[in-house]
Amino acid sequence: MSNSRPIGVFDSGIGGLTVVRALTHHLPHENIVYFGDTARVPYGPKSSQVVREYAAQDTDVLLEHDVKMIVIACNTVSAVALDVVQKRAKVPVVGVIQPGAEAAARATTKKRVGIIGTIGTINSYAYVNTLRQIDPGIQAFSQACPLFVPLAEEGWTDHKATELIAKEYLFPLTLEKIDTLILGCTHYPLLTTIIGKVLHQSVTLIDSGEATAVTVKRLLDEKNMRNASKLKPNLQFNVSDVPHRFTEVGERFLGQKLGRVHRVAGFAA
Amino acid sequence: MSNSRPIGVFDSGIGGLTVVRALTHHLPHENIVYFGDTARVPYGPKSSQVVREYAAQDTDVLLEHDVKMIVIACNTVSAVALDVVQKRAKVPVVGVIQPGAEAAARATTKKRVGIIGTIGTINSYAYVNTLRQIDPGIQAFSQACPLFVPLAEEGWTDHKATELIAKEYLFPLTLEKIDTLILGCTHYPLLTTIIGKVLHQSVTLIDSGEATAVTVKRLLDEKNMRNASKLKPNLQFNVSDVPHRFTEVGERFLGQKLGRVHRVAGFAA
Repeated sequence: MSNSRPIGVFDSGIGGLTVVRALTHHLPHENIVYFGDTARVPYGPKSSQVVREYAAQDTDVLLEHDVKMIVIACNTVSAVALDVVQKRAKVPVVGVIQPGAEAAARATTKKRVGIIGTIGTINSYAYVNTLRQIDPGIQAFSQACPLFVPLAEEGWTDHKATELIAKEYLFPLTLEKIDTLILGCTHYPLLTTIIGKVLHQSVTLIDSGEATAVTVKRLLDEKNMRNASKLKPNLQFNVSDVPHRFTEVGERFLGQKLGRVHRVAGFAA
Repeated sequence: MSNSRPIGVFDSGIGGLTVVRALTHHLPHENIVYFGDTARVPYGPKSSQVVREYAAQDTDVLLEHDVKMIVIACNTVSAVALDVVQKRAKVPVVGVIQPGAEAAARATTKKRVGIIGTIGTINSYAYVNTLRQIDPGIQAFSQACPLFVPLAEEGWTDHKATELIAKEYLFPLTLEKIDTLILGCTHYPLLTTIIGKVLHQSVTLIDSGEATAVTVKRLLDEKNMRNASKLKPNLQFNVSDVPHRFTEVGERFLGQKLGRVHRVAGFAA
């Protein structure tokens, strides 16, 4: 059974575009509807209560597009509001935490896994708890890296200042002799080079967005929900605000042209 | 005529607490009601349209407290939505742009003024236009510094990485041989030491929040609206979200204990 309905993807802003990039790589014929809540970004520092309310509203935006699946392309939402989205949607919901944790559990040889993310994601212990469920023998070490998001958005991905900041954030994790590091924020794949340099390449980096795309592909196959069409798919980008430099920054995250971006009304009211 | 009604102060988040600090210094007996829109912070990168809608809602929160004056303790809002607030409020409204520009015009000897701020503030040309109105002979040079806000919130005010970032942002302004620099964002006073160091102390730094407090004092005197009571005033802090580390970061900005913070409902809906 073919299913040409779009996959719905949402994020607090533009970070989720790295997940869309991974999805288009693994599923080149799927239609995708994206929603970024750019009027209220970032979610990372905000309370769980507010993130849960925002997640419910973001879900509703996607449901209006008759999506066949919802991908929460935001670690903070996946960490604190997965149940909110699952309860609201009648379609399968995939967050980035479980796929990222599974990929890390497979990759680690010494069972010592580091996790970096926003303050919201780290404080939720979502990755730590999920890793423990997968393998109670894994030791997990967390570090919030709040400056990584603005550095990635500024495009300072190869700057001496970014390297200094990365060294400071990651130093405690190197002391713990991790062999695997979960990039628990969709912005962080842009900083892979500098993170790898600081960690001396001895650590396997896990991109949760990439792992999520693989999970989405498997789920669609299991449920016979793949789009059979081999035509160029439709990618539609919606945002609650079109902020300054949106296109420039967004295309760096997506890795291709964004095309026309729709502004969804009602998020400032 | 005495007037014990509070002064209303609002900001996109916690940055405006540096303005409250200046107000309590210059007006130690005035009651103050503060509102920080922490559920939607930051405004700096967002479009003017969204900032204007948010500013109207923030104004309404203060008006419910029967304030006698509104201080827009946010450069981005002052730059793009002063008219929105003025139209909505029946009380005097003071933004931070005009007082900051006036203080800079008085301070400059070579009539070469630099301005740093968020992307929203810089793109609005509000400081440039105001400086020109005050003195057409002044040459103004602008630089957006998006990383300064997260660095100030992280408390990295004396970090080598912050110094590198400040050097990169401020280098073009040093080439223009400015003698005065407007700190056009309420977060930046926390970075005064590092900015001064990078500029080699030859440049006068203008804190718009400080200049605004002086203007508020003058206006209250002109209008006979000062509070005659010499008792300890009531400072009430309201936010739309109580984000992670709010108290820790907020008290660093305010320079004193915050006390009880009220969450205003309805900003996540």
